[in-house]
Amino acid sequence: MRRRPFALSLSLALSSLLGAAHADEGMWMPSQLPEIAGALEAAGYRGDPRGLAELAEPPMNAVVKVGGASGAFVSKEGLVLTNHHVAFGVIQYNSRPDRDLIRDGYVAADRAAELPANPDYRILVTTGFERITDRILAGARGKRGRAYYDAVDAASKAAVAECEREPGYRCSVANMYYGTDFYLVRQLELRDVRLVYAPPNAIGNYGGEVDNFVWPRHAGDFTLLRAYVGKDGRPADYSPDNVPYVPPAHLQVSTRHVKDGDFAMLAGYPGVTFRHRMASEFAQQVEWQLPARVALYQRMIEVIEAAAGDEAARVAYASQLRSLKNSLKRAQGELDGLRRSDAVRVRREDEAAMFAWLGRQAGAAAARADIAAAQAVLDRAAATRERDQLLAAIQSQTQLLRAALTVQRLAHERGKPDTQRESGYQQRDEALIAGQLKQVQRRYAPAVEKALLAELLARHQALPAAQRVPEFDAVFGATPAELKRRLDALYAGTRLGDEDARLAAMRADAAALRESGDALLRAAAALLPALLRLDDQAKAREGELLRLRPAYMRALIAYRRSQGRAVYPDANSTLRVSYGRISPMSPRDGIDYRPLTTVAGIVEKHTGQDPFDAPRPLLDAIARGDFGSTAEPSLKTQTVDFLTNLDTTGGNSGSPVLDADGRLIGLNFDSNWEAVSASWMFDPRYKRAIHVDLRYLRWLLAKVYPAPHLLQEMNLPAE
Amino acid sequence: MRRRPFALSLSLALSSLLGAAHADEGMWMPSQLPEIAGALEAAGYRGDPRGLAELAEPPMNAVVKVGGASGAFVSKEGLVLTNHHVAFGVIQYNSRPDRDLIRDGYVAADRAAELPANPDYRILVTTGFERITDRILAGARGKRGRAYYDAVDAASKAAVAECEREPGYRCSVANMYYGTDFYLVRQLELRDVRLVYAPPNAIGNYGGEVDNFVWPRHAGDFTLLRAYVGKDGRPADYSPDNVPYVPPAHLQVSTRHVKDGDFAMLAGYPGVTFRHRMASEFAQQVEWQLPARVALYQRMIEVIEAAAGDEAARVAYASQLRSLKNSLKRAQGELDGLRRSDAVRVRREDEAAMFAWLGRQAGAAAARADIAAAQAVLDRAAATRERDQLLAAIQSQTQLLRAALTVQRLAHERGKPDTQRESGYQQRDEALIAGQLKQVQRRYAPAVEKALLAELLARHQALPAAQRVPEFDAVFGATPAELKRRLDALYAGTRLGDEDARLAAMRADAAALRESGDALLRAAAALLPALLRLDDQAKAREGELLRLRPAYMRALIAYRRSQGRAVYPDANSTLRVSYGRISPMSPRDGIDYRPLTTVAGIVEKHTGQDPFDAPRPLLDAIARGDFGSTAEPSLKTQTVDFLTNLDTTGGNSGSPVLDADGRLIGLNFDSNWEAVSASWMFDPRYKRAIHVDLRYLRWLLAKVYPAPHLLQEMNLPAE
Repeated sequence: MRRRPFALSLSLALSSLLGAAHADEGMWMPSQLPEIAGALEAAGYRGDPRGLAELAEPPMNAVVKVGGASGAFVSKEGLVLTNHHVAFGVIQYNSRPDRDLIRDGYVAADRAAELPANPDYRILVTTGFERITDRILAGARGKRGRAYYDAVDAASKAAVAECEREPGYRCSVANMYYGTDFYLVRQLELRDVRLVYAPPNAIGNYGGEVDNFVWPRHAGDFTLLRAYVGKDGRPADYSPDNVPYVPPAHLQVSTRHVKDGDFAMLAGYPGVTFRHRMASEFAQQVEWQLPARVALYQRMIEVIEAAAGDEAARVAYASQLRSLKNSLKRAQGELDGLRRSDAVRVRREDEAAMFAWLGRQAGAAAARADIAAAQAVLDRAAATRERDQLLAAIQSQTQLLRAALTVQRLAHERGKPDTQRESGYQQRDEALIAGQLKQVQRRYAPAVEKALLAELLARHQALPAAQRVPEFDAVFGATPAELKRRLDALYAGTRLGDEDARLAAMRADAAALRESGDALLRAAAALLPALLRLDDQAKAREGELLRLRPAYMRALIAYRRSQGRAVYPDANSTLRVSYGRISPMSPRDGIDYRPLTTVAGIVEKHTGQDPFDAPRPLLDAIARGDFGSTAEPSLKTQTVDFLTNLDTTGGNSGSPVLDADGRLIGLNFDSNWEAVSASWMFDPRYKRAIHVDLRYLRWLLAKVYPAPHLLQEMNLPAE
Repeated sequence: MRRRPFALSLSLALSSLLGAAHADEGMWMPSQLPEIAGALEAAGYRGDPRGLAELAEPPMNAVVKVGGASGAFVSKEGLVLTNHHVAFGVIQYNSRPDRDLIRDGYVAADRAAELPANPDYRILVTTGFERITDRILAGARGKRGRAYYDAVDAASKAAVAECEREPGYRCSVANMYYGTDFYLVRQLELRDVRLVYAPPNAIGNYGGEVDNFVWPRHAGDFTLLRAYVGKDGRPADYSPDNVPYVPPAHLQVSTRHVKDGDFAMLAGYPGVTFRHRMASEFAQQVEWQLPARVALYQRMIEVIEAAAGDEAARVAYASQLRSLKNSLKRAQGELDGLRRSDAVRVRREDEAAMFAWLGRQAGAAAARADIAAAQAVLDRAAATRERDQLLAAIQSQTQLLRAALTVQRLAHERGKPDTQRESGYQQRDEALIAGQLKQVQRRYAPAVEKALLAELLARHQALPAAQRVPEFDAVFGATPAELKRRLDALYAGTRLGDEDARLAAMRADAAALRESGDALLRAAAALLPALLRLDDQAKAREGELLRLRPAYMRALIAYRRSQGRAVYPDANSTLRVSYGRISPMSPRDGIDYRPLTTVAGIVEKHTGQDPFDAPRPLLDAIARGDFGSTAEPSLKTQTVDFLTNLDTTGGNSGSPVLDADGRLIGLNFDSNWEAVSASWMFDPRYKRAIHVDLRYLRWLLAKVYPAPHLLQEMNLPAE
């Protein structure tokens, strides 16, 4: 990376006091880094923080979005480092019965051997990040509710359309600080991506689901891809004539050793966090949302398991059960974590202090009025939270009813011009919808769906009248006995269990659907107006919150500034930077986790059975102890993964981890279980991120599954 | 404890070089401690090791055997400290529906409130430990096999009988170094034991089965008892007129703080270890015994679970299943541990080095001949190991068949003078046998017992002829089909399912039993000659090993001495001392266990549900943070348990843990899971012992469940 003289950063000393109070927490927009330069330097960063602020300059333009997650260029010829799990689809796409790249891994001997990714796989290079708040909000000012929402939506779509006029770019509008600011993000879209180097799955995903969220970890979760472009240097679909993309910058993998306490920073595309939500939302999450989710998911799991009476039904619902159990586990983990961190009390006290401070500022009354109005919107939404949870489950956890509702909604949307259709129901979405309708077959058993609906709709029947949806009562009846009769009749009277019938219904127009004699399609037609009405209400609420939340965020930002602290926006899949250090942790009384793991742990965990079936060449290389220059001197063995206190969330997979000089030392791939609640609250005692130690990558490429040409390309020693 | 001037120990410097190579391993006879004085002092012991050698002098005579485990006097008025789980029977015996001492704990307000233990509960004070090898072996010399065994047995019984002539004493002969030496152990038997102080079960057994073998641990596993004697100062049955026993010595609980690395030593009655078994026995344990046990137990569990078709059968077999699963888990843990420590290779290399050394010594040929003969005995035993495993399971895992065999064996033994009856079938054992026969009812279902026998006997049928027992083939048939018919007939034709029938059979004489028409009693009569024959063969092998193993042990002792190391005898429930230090451990790559836990862990683990239902007074006291002088200054909180590298095994429960000055700092109560294999091999990486930190005891007595009078009696500060 580019270095600037140290002296330059001295002029930033005053403004860069900001942020020092929050040394570990923060997913900073690169543009904020000069503002928190003092904190960055105090933490040990040796480069110039202003050098990190420019998205279109090195090193930030070496950080890319890959397959929905993160990655980085690591050579001047378009080599991209990301996670094995982020590139898994590419590896799978190139596997055949006689060439199992998942099991065996892959080393492309030369450029010609690099394997094209699935055609929809993308690498995005962020080239523009422009604040367009005024443009987005110009048409919204003075409006409220749904109108405010529609005005923001229309302005965003227009900005994106204009930006995307140049071929090869994908654009989006990012909402920062909950409607306070809007940024136009412009990304070069590289469409020819190829597989260069993947370790065997038993290295890349060593430990599998068992080790998911687990520290100490021993996975080599990395893969090398290469981006190609047309001979003109511009993005192109795959062609054998394409040439490697020459990135504007790339990161240099470090050849130094790392240890506990070393500075570390990370750049990537974290997905979503809720750190700056209001205290009442924290309370709702901990006191109702998560416990209710745990209870409902637990009940749905019991109902499905009890109703799946034969082997065919158990197979059909295996995936849904696994997904429900995973969601249940995550919800319970998040709940446990937020309780352990006493999140509601901490956030309440922080907010109360902010309000006290705000009361002493000019303009406090207007801000308080907006915040009170936002709270009222949240309170109104909370009044129907039980119903909304049930309706969401009815629409997401059924197969045939969901298919009927989708078909009816599609017919409804087709009545509008394509650009005005609801997102997800546009012409470009129809292939995806058809694919989903085909899949219903494999995931459905009538007895299970009826049992699940009986459970969910009985709960709906038991709600107070103010929450109940009349159309649901009309279709399913108002008593459990009536409900059972209606469900039996609906599922006896539908042909949607046949794939042909579903696809025919999808092709049918609205008029034909209206006349359909299929009981479930008629039920869906009767329910659709209710769902459209609720959807409209939700968008109106969303519009109001877009309008009102900025008062809360501005107060928070001003309050933090009064404390000498900066505020990062909650994560929204835009490029962010966090910094901290390699760090141990104590998960519980009496236990310490060391921050670096070694190959000894691979051998300890090895059982010979998936997911702990370390490949023989790896075990042999460990037994030989031939680690070369990549062995950690203090441990006299090869390290595998390391732990930092960096602030990450989903989407940060594949984020490059840099040292104090901007050299690449690690590759982010997971968090620890104790950090599941970090999407709401960063607790420095428990929040850690898990990275591949790139010395392990170098060793694998040097000694285990050799790729000397790639080490040379990355300017790394041969061993 | 008594201190001797430091200068005295200097004279021991030469001999006490011995043992230094093995600083952590060793369950030393107290009489060996002068021999390893140098190692003890190098480890940090500040007293005179010779002071520890005398069993009948302080501090060793303060260490007692309590309810089959260990304990120590802690006041001059007979107060005894042992584990909550060692005194559990006493607590249970004193609990009533309206006075649940298990749940609530107990604090005797004064002497009058101290509650008598169950009448069979004993505290034993070792008063004599005399080497009587010549006397025991005099009659055995020149004999072999069963005759050697019988000569040793007769001499031992005679020595015990003579020793027990003085009332109030219990005596036994301890076999050290596998027949090399014999010691007469003389113990004062205190029969009036009373409950003084027990914490609630949710403290004494916090974590229950879930935390069993677990570190970090948070249990206050202690109880205080008091020994009483008659007014004449001699052991007596309970009487309200009895007076507290005045022990010859007691241990002083320390008021100092302890930390990682501090010297620690422990005295107690470890049960059994196999450390000095031959390399071939290590190999058989790892390569056959443990894997075969795991496989057979797993299969028995499956058979019982499949056959226990109704709720009544499941309840009847719940305890047996729990016990089988526990044994399976332990066997798997021991196997994993021995493999992790590479025990077979380590022992083989050590033995090979010993043989190489032995070959260069005078008299090597005779020693090698004995050792080869011992190996041949082991090889002959191994030739029928599959059969012996099955016969052991048939006799231990059945209820009705076992009852029939017991009744027949008892009738057989009754034909001899009482002193010559087999141990376990003497007059004094008959009450116990009757009790067991009564219990059969609650633990039996015919379908389960038949299924289990079908599995075990089918395996017997499948053995080669050389292993099969003809009487079993005769009774149960030689094919699976025949087996099924015979089992059906046996269980249809027996009345032993009735308690009255079993007790009547027990009362019947041999002649009446011979004429019995009960199918199962007749089967047992047919099997008995086989079992007696196999028993005789086993004793003949045992006799041969008693005769031959000493050559191996003498070679090992001499070889170790040539390395400057001493050899402790394998554990055999006699008083032993181990020493080491407070010690962290790394159970796996990347994880460190701290050696001290704190009350924070009690709160972390608390769920409100058994076994993590910490009592409210404890939680409140923790929340108040009022820890007084017992709080660890470096942690600023109250510690709970600590970890040492002391060498322990089953039977060491309740062992006092002493500091470098002989002050009481801890109470041993468990080992870590990784140490399950330590009965065969001490691996210093993984062998740890878990102790109550007596500062926790002091805090509970001072602040949580106060007993100021007991603190005063133990000469401890009030808080």
